[in-house]
Amino acid sequence: MMQVALAQVAAVDWGKVFGTAIKVLLILVLAFVIMRLGDAAVERFFNNWNKLGPVDGRRAQTLRTLLKSGLRYTVYFIAMVTILNLFGVRVEAILAGAGVVGLAVGFGAQNLVRDVITGFFLLLEDQFAVGDYITAAGVSGTVEEMGLRVTRLRDFGGELHIIPNGQITQVTNHSRGNMRALVEVGVAYEEDLDRVTAVLQQVCEQAARDMADIIAEGPHVLGVVNFGQSDVVIRIIAYTKPMQQWYVERELRRRIKEAFDRENIEIPYPRRVVLSMSGGERRDQVSGW
Amino acid sequence: MMQVALAQVAAVDWGKVFGTAIKVLLILVLAFVIMRLGDAAVERFFNNWNKLGPVDGRRAQTLRTLLKSGLRYTVYFIAMVTILNLFGVRVEAILAGAGVVGLAVGFGAQNLVRDVITGFFLLLEDQFAVGDYITAAGVSGTVEEMGLRVTRLRDFGGELHIIPNGQITQVTNHSRGNMRALVEVGVAYEEDLDRVTAVLQQVCEQAARDMADIIAEGPHVLGVVNFGQSDVVIRIIAYTKPMQQWYVERELRRRIKEAFDRENIEIPYPRRVVLSMSGGERRDQVSGW
Amino acid sequence: MMQVALAQVAAVDWGKVFGTAIKVLLILVLAFVIMRLGDAAVERFFNNWNKLGPVDGRRAQTLRTLLKSGLRYTVYFIAMVTILNLFGVRVEAILAGAGVVGLAVGFGAQNLVRDVITGFFLLLEDQFAVGDYITAAGVSGTVEEMGLRVTRLRDFGGELHIIPNGQITQVTNHSRGNMRALVEVGVAYEEDLDRVTAVLQQVCEQAARDMADIIAEGPHVLGVVNFGQSDVVIRIIAYTKPMQQWYVERELRRRIKEAFDRENIEIPYPRRVVLSMSGGERRDQVSGW
Amino acid sequence: MMQVALAQVAAVDWGKVFGTAIKVLLILVLAFVIMRLGDAAVERFFNNWNKLGPVDGRRAQTLRTLLKSGLRYTVYFIAMVTILNLFGVRVEAILAGAGVVGLAVGFGAQNLVRDVITGFFLLLEDQFAVGDYITAAGVSGTVEEMGLRVTRLRDFGGELHIIPNGQITQVTNHSRGNMRALVEVGVAYEEDLDRVTAVLQQVCEQAARDMADIIAEGPHVLGVVNFGQSDVVIRIIAYTKPMQQWYVERELRRRIKEAFDRENIEIPYPRRVVLSMSGGERRDQVSGW
Amino acid sequence: MMQVALAQVAAVDWGKVFGTAIKVLLILVLAFVIMRLGDAAVERFFNNWNKLGPVDGRRAQTLRTLLKSGLRYTVYFIAMVTILNLFGVRVEAILAGAGVVGLAVGFGAQNLVRDVITGFFLLLEDQFAVGDYITAAGVSGTVEEMGLRVTRLRDFGGELHIIPNGQITQVTNHSRGNMRALVEVGVAYEEDLDRVTAVLQQVCEQAARDMADIIAEGPHVLGVVNFGQSDVVIRIIAYTKPMQQWYVERELRRRIKEAFDRENIEIPYPRRVVLSMSGGERRDQVSGW
Amino acid sequence: MMQVALAQVAAVDWGKVFGTAIKVLLILVLAFVIMRLGDAAVERFFNNWNKLGPVDGRRAQTLRTLLKSGLRYTVYFIAMVTILNLFGVRVEAILAGAGVVGLAVGFGAQNLVRDVITGFFLLLEDQFAVGDYITAAGVSGTVEEMGLRVTRLRDFGGELHIIPNGQITQVTNHSRGNMRALVEVGVAYEEDLDRVTAVLQQVCEQAARDMADIIAEGPHVLGVVNFGQSDVVIRIIAYTKPMQQWYVERELRRRIKEAFDRENIEIPYPRRVVLSMSGGERRDQVSGW
Amino acid sequence: MMQVALAQVAAVDWGKVFGTAIKVLLILVLAFVIMRLGDAAVERFFNNWNKLGPVDGRRAQTLRTLLKSGLRYTVYFIAMVTILNLFGVRVEAILAGAGVVGLAVGFGAQNLVRDVITGFFLLLEDQFAVGDYITAAGVSGTVEEMGLRVTRLRDFGGELHIIPNGQITQVTNHSRGNMRALVEVGVAYEEDLDRVTAVLQQVCEQAARDMADIIAEGPHVLGVVNFGQSDVVIRIIAYTKPMQQWYVERELRRRIKEAFDRENIEIPYPRRVVLSMSGGERRDQVSGW
Repeated sequence: MMQVALAQVAAVDWGKVFGTAIKVLLILVLAFVIMRLGDAAVERFFNNWNKLGPVDGRRAQTLRTLLKSGLRYTVYFIAMVTILNLFGVRVEAILAGAGVVGLAVGFGAQNLVRDVITGFFLLLEDQFAVGDYITAAGVSGTVEEMGLRVTRLRDFGGELHIIPNGQITQVTNHSRGNMRALVEVGVAYEEDLDRVTAVLQQVCEQAARDMADIIAEGPHVLGVVNFGQSDVVIRIIAYTKPMQQWYVERELRRRIKEAFDRENIEIPYPRRVVLSMSGGERRDQVSGW
Repeated sequence: MMQVALAQVAAVDWGKVFGTAIKVLLILVLAFVIMRLGDAAVERFFNNWNKLGPVDGRRAQTLRTLLKSGLRYTVYFIAMVTILNLFGVRVEAILAGAGVVGLAVGFGAQNLVRDVITGFFLLLEDQFAVGDYITAAGVSGTVEEMGLRVTRLRDFGGELHIIPNGQITQVTNHSRGNMRALVEVGVAYEEDLDRVTAVLQQVCEQAARDMADIIAEGPHVLGVVNFGQSDVVIRIIAYTKPMQQWYVERELRRRIKEAFDRENIEIPYPRRVVLSMSGGERRDQVSGW
Repeated sequence: MMQVALAQVAAVDWGKVFGTAIKVLLILVLAFVIMRLGDAAVERFFNNWNKLGPVDGRRAQTLRTLLKSGLRYTVYFIAMVTILNLFGVRVEAILAGAGVVGLAVGFGAQNLVRDVITGFFLLLEDQFAVGDYITAAGVSGTVEEMGLRVTRLRDFGGELHIIPNGQITQVTNHSRGNMRALVEVGVAYEEDLDRVTAVLQQVCEQAARDMADIIAEGPHVLGVVNFGQSDVVIRIIAYTKPMQQWYVERELRRRIKEAFDRENIEIPYPRRVVLSMSGGERRDQVSGW
Repeated sequence: MMQVALAQVAAVDWGKVFGTAIKVLLILVLAFVIMRLGDAAVERFFNNWNKLGPVDGRRAQTLRTLLKSGLRYTVYFIAMVTILNLFGVRVEAILAGAGVVGLAVGFGAQNLVRDVITGFFLLLEDQFAVGDYITAAGVSGTVEEMGLRVTRLRDFGGELHIIPNGQITQVTNHSRGNMRALVEVGVAYEEDLDRVTAVLQQVCEQAARDMADIIAEGPHVLGVVNFGQSDVVIRIIAYTKPMQQWYVERELRRRIKEAFDRENIEIPYPRRVVLSMSGGERRDQVSGW
Repeated sequence: MMQVALAQVAAVDWGKVFGTAIKVLLILVLAFVIMRLGDAAVERFFNNWNKLGPVDGRRAQTLRTLLKSGLRYTVYFIAMVTILNLFGVRVEAILAGAGVVGLAVGFGAQNLVRDVITGFFLLLEDQFAVGDYITAAGVSGTVEEMGLRVTRLRDFGGELHIIPNGQITQVTNHSRGNMRALVEVGVAYEEDLDRVTAVLQQVCEQAARDMADIIAEGPHVLGVVNFGQSDVVIRIIAYTKPMQQWYVERELRRRIKEAFDRENIEIPYPRRVVLSMSGGERRDQVSGW
Repeated sequence: MMQVALAQVAAVDWGKVFGTAIKVLLILVLAFVIMRLGDAAVERFFNNWNKLGPVDGRRAQTLRTLLKSGLRYTVYFIAMVTILNLFGVRVEAILAGAGVVGLAVGFGAQNLVRDVITGFFLLLEDQFAVGDYITAAGVSGTVEEMGLRVTRLRDFGGELHIIPNGQITQVTNHSRGNMRALVEVGVAYEEDLDRVTAVLQQVCEQAARDMADIIAEGPHVLGVVNFGQSDVVIRIIAYTKPMQQWYVERELRRRIKEAFDRENIEIPYPRRVVLSMSGGERRDQVSGW
Repeated sequence: MMQVALAQVAAVDWGKVFGTAIKVLLILVLAFVIMRLGDAAVERFFNNWNKLGPVDGRRAQTLRTLLKSGLRYTVYFIAMVTILNLFGVRVEAILAGAGVVGLAVGFGAQNLVRDVITGFFLLLEDQFAVGDYITAAGVSGTVEEMGLRVTRLRDFGGELHIIPNGQITQVTNHSRGNMRALVEVGVAYEEDLDRVTAVLQQVCEQAARDMADIIAEGPHVLGVVNFGQSDVVIRIIAYTKPMQQWYVERELRRRIKEAFDRENIEIPYPRRVVLSMSGGERRDQVSGW
């Protein structure tokens, strides 16, 4: 047996072994060079980008790290597969053989991948920043943390929403630009619309002066937006600094109530006209009530 | 060992090396030529398109750049794969071996691809332009920015909606053509419909004269569109310049209210006929109330 | 080195080169012939189709162009792949190697393909024509433009809906055949149904005479379709020329209102029987009100 | 060059050419034979089916044609691929190479295939026939046309619905068997239920006699199906010939109204017991009204 | 040419031809044997199953036929492919080449396959039988026919629902076991609950005696299930033979109404306490009514 | 011909035949050994599991059988494919050739597989047991039978729900731990909340004593949970043994009604303040009523 | 025959056998080394992570075990496939041959994989911990158990929800940070808003003092948030320790009720203005009531 073993060792094709070793070395060197070049390309890309406009440092750092890691793991993977192939390990066969498992894993993992890809674009496109009040995936809140896989929102109610980025299809950002404050008030059909409008106009002008620091576009009386069942509905709108719209709406309502009280303008209760039928009706006599 | 190494070097098939080098050169030249031809084709396409009608310069530029880049990267990719194959790197094996990862990435990235493809057609087909008021993916707003991946809409409420283009299945554009202003007003069953119609007709004619600059097709009294519970509902419609329809509706409502007040035509409160049962009812006696 | 290069050139198998050239030529000729035959087949198909019945010229032209282009690109593609294979470029390997990208593109592009396939059938089957009033993908409007990828509808409200054809699963066409006008009117339980029916019948007959040009099937009084809370509901239907149904409904309502006023038939307000409890009730004494 | 060309021609392996020609011939003959056999099999299948019961001639014809075409194109396709393979054209490579496009087309075309497959079964299983009133894919109407890809329904409102067969998951056929007519009528709590039931029973018996030609199973008084807020609800059902149920319901309602008027049975208006609080209430004194 | 042809014939390797013929024969014999064994296995399976409990003969027959056919077609298919391979027809290549079409067909046909697989389990697991009243895929009705692809339900309204089995995800069977009859009756807050309960208990006991043949578990007075706005709601339940629950509910309602009339227990009309404000109110003076 | 046949037989490579036979034998032995080892491993797994805690014998038996069968069929399948390969039958080619059919079957069968996998986990994780009252896939009921493919629930209404396990995404088990009984009762705004709370507290304490065997955590008066339109809503909760919560709620309602009657605390009817306008109103004079 | 067998044995290529054995040995050694290295890497990763911040020991342990098992099974699998390949068993062919089954299994098992992947991230990212009150997959409850495949929530109602982790797309955690308590109270239009606000402010200040241990941010009177039909709605909010918000809301309601009773501020009943029409109305005379 020993002889056979020795024969085996002797039969090794040393030239082939040597050649293989050189190839492995070359692949490793090449992989190293490509990684360096890739890193440099990423750096240059971010430097150029920086010149175009102000970039949030922390976000740029996240993206830079991400791109470099992605590049590195891709190069590692290809180098490893190529080297294993040199040694005759059929990596692709193994991976193909792992197809049944792979299919399940692939489908199962797609959510993970989608989360990360979406997260990458959320960061890159600056759709929102920490501190913004946004609506996404059906919930609203202040952004507490932006990650590659999940975003954390703090609800007005105090709840913490943890949303995988892949669930975020469309984002509504309430902190970019002025927000609208909208108040609708109903007055009785009997009121004189011109007088009501004049009173509301006064309230609006006073409010614009008093809240000049948070109102961007003074409250305007738009006019009659609906013939309600018991009232004529008048709409007032203003544009305010973000997150101040609810305060402005409450303040406007308080001032309108005050002005209407002062001016004897009524915000009407629901009304109904009742037609009473009493005595001598044909039908009820018949039914013997 | 050294000898083996030298033997290895000596054994290199220099003819093969030389042939490979020529092939690589040919591939590169070919790739360069194809890219040039492709660029020229894209240019000619856009020049011809230009002749057919006015093309928004910025959009054409976006599409031209996009097509050229796509072509370039495709040629790069094919040339690289072909060259790597010449050197015996089994690129397709590596990529196939990356199948499990690829499946997940492919599924995860399909949203990205769909966004870009849809964005391309949104630009090419001129479905909307910056400044249009549109409805898409369930939200409405003025288009602030059109990109290949996302579209940004500014809501009437001030919110900024950021919509991936792939989410935009159908677009409703409110800024192409005249918009309808529609007012419905209920009058009591007791009113004379002919007199009411005449009054409304007068209001409409006056409004058409006063707002001639924004009304495209004068308000018409359509007629009775519903027998309501307490009123006969009459509909008036007009066509106006885009985004002016709400103003016209509010103005029409104000004028109708004024005219009805003047003419003593009533917009009725909800009515109910009450039949009172008092004393001597069979049942209530029985139950001992 | 030069010698090696020359040796390389000398070593070229000119017979093989020549053979390859002939094969390329043959493939090109074959491709040309097949394209001609295909064009002829398409022409003959459309000529035969034409004989069967009247075909909208513009639509036929669109389809003819489409079929020819599809055929042409398919032949181009196969010829190119075959020729590249002759030169040893492993096109299928490249394309397979592009699998990861391809998967994403394939999934992303399926919407585009579905749009075009559906558009083809919308054209071929004549489901609607420009000017028809249709409902599709949840919106209604007049067809302004039919394309292979998108259909444009103009809403009654003036909005322009741009719908990718793939979103159109089922089409409702309101312009093919007569439309129904339906009016429901409630009369009090106290009325004599036979008299009411007679009055309504008269109105219908008069309307049928007066609007004979737009009414296809005279309004009929169907009968009692509901015992409402306060009224007996009677239904009247007619069939009219497309898009005239709303006018006929409004006109019928006006005439019914007039006839009922003349005949003292009441369209009742909501009614309620009120049973008052006053004094001496067991319970309220107990609770000390 | 000429010599090389001639040498090429001379070098052709004529035996191989001849063999190939014979193989091609054999394949064509085989394909022809298989097609003939297939046609015969289809014919025999339909003849046997015919013997089992009456088959709608037009539908059988559609299916027969469809099956024969399917068979024919399959044989054509296989023969063509086999012959092209003989000539060394790697059809499968081309088609595999077309994978990226194919994936998109495949997914895009699946709707088309599903339409046709579903249409085939709709025809084969006789789920409905032209003229039936059916509900499918959320719309109801009379079947105007059944095709392999689409079904056309004419709505009661006149609209023409064009439904791709793949959208038809479940069919509700209103024209196979007797339909139910259902009338619910409310009577006051004060009425004697036995007397009411007797009156309704009489109405039903009379109706059964008068409409014997369209009523399959005489109207029955089922009994009390609900204690309503203001009435005791009694249900009457009958089974009628298809599409006559609405007429029977309207007729029953008319007769019930008549009988109730005659017999002084009341269909009650909504009732409400009102407990008035007047003067001296604890609370209202406190709040200073 | 003739010589060449002859040479071709002479050159046929008759040994190979003969060997191939034997192989074909062996394959056919093997296929026959396997089919016989499979049939026997299916028979034995059904015989064993039969011993375990009573099996509905028709259903067992359907399943037996189905299993045998499936087995047979599988063996046919494998034998055919193997034989074609012997003759050098690359069946798998053809089928792979048919990949683009196949993808579309595969996706399109998956509904068909799912219908049949689900149908197989519906039969095997005896989820319902012809004549059962079931709810499936959103519709309810009596099962008229169970097939491998579709199930036909006859609705209480007379409509025939044709449901592909793949649409049936979960089945609710109303004919397996006793059904609940549930009656809720409201009494006034002023009533003595103990007396009401005693009266209802009597009604229940009488009903249990009178309908002993269809009531499985005598009606019980459960107690107060809700404090309604105007009444205290008491619930009564019973369990009855399938499909008799509605009759029992109607009968119970009739008897309760009768008992309550006899015992002077009131089923109250909706009540409302009205607080009138008359004269001298602060506000209305202000607003100048 | 005979000779040829004999030659064929003689030409058989008996050494190869013999070697093949040995290989087949080895494969069979190996398969047998692996199955034995697998069975032993399964047994040991279940024995160890048994030691950790009490395991429901029947369920463990189901899982043990399932795992052994799975293992057995896997080994059978691999052995068969390996043996067929030895005989030169290209099983993988056949199966690949069956790809078009396979795709459809695979997609169609995925529901079946998902049912079984989910069923396996439902059993393994003990999510519910026969007799538990659960909610799953939108229906609630008592578990009558748990299978690998379907679960059968008996509804409170008597209906039998048959749910494929794959439809069960999340399970709500109402029989694991104490259930909450919740009663909300409204009292008039005029009542003294402290007195009402004291009375309710007494009722709760008495109920806790009387139903100590089924109440786990005595009913508590939580406090005011809503300012209703006509009442102040007070909530009482208790925790009870599973399935007793409804009885406890009914009993608590009965006792509260009794206590309130005794203590003269009112459960108020809906209230409304009515402001009558009579004579001399500006508007109605105008409109000429 | 014996001779043949011996010849077979003699013909065995012992050198090859020996070489194979060595290769097997090498693979096993390598697999062992890789596993050791992997374990070490996992340990080091967790040690480093530990240094960064406090890590919940049990969760870290779960993840560590999971990662090691995953690594181990991957190495086992690759080693086994490589060894089987050495012995000529075509594992990948077998697995590919199992493709039809695999497809179904893969699709069926994807849910399982998704559950585990999601569970892994739920643990890793610390989205919630046992004892937290969360909302996930549409149900809310206290986390009783977190597993890799399922999470168990205990509902406020006592129900146990068992949710596969893959169903948990977004998590709302109610136990991280302070929760909002929100009370809305309506006051009559006649009240003086400033006095009401002052009273509410007093209540809030007292509540903040009395519940200082559970209120994080004292209750504030926000102002008028709505003009209701019969009342002016004022909102009060506070932030409390998690799970105390409902208690604080109930307590605030109790104190507001008390303060309003003391201060004679009214929480108004619904109001309605009634305009009675009595005698001499045009219409009713006409209709002959």
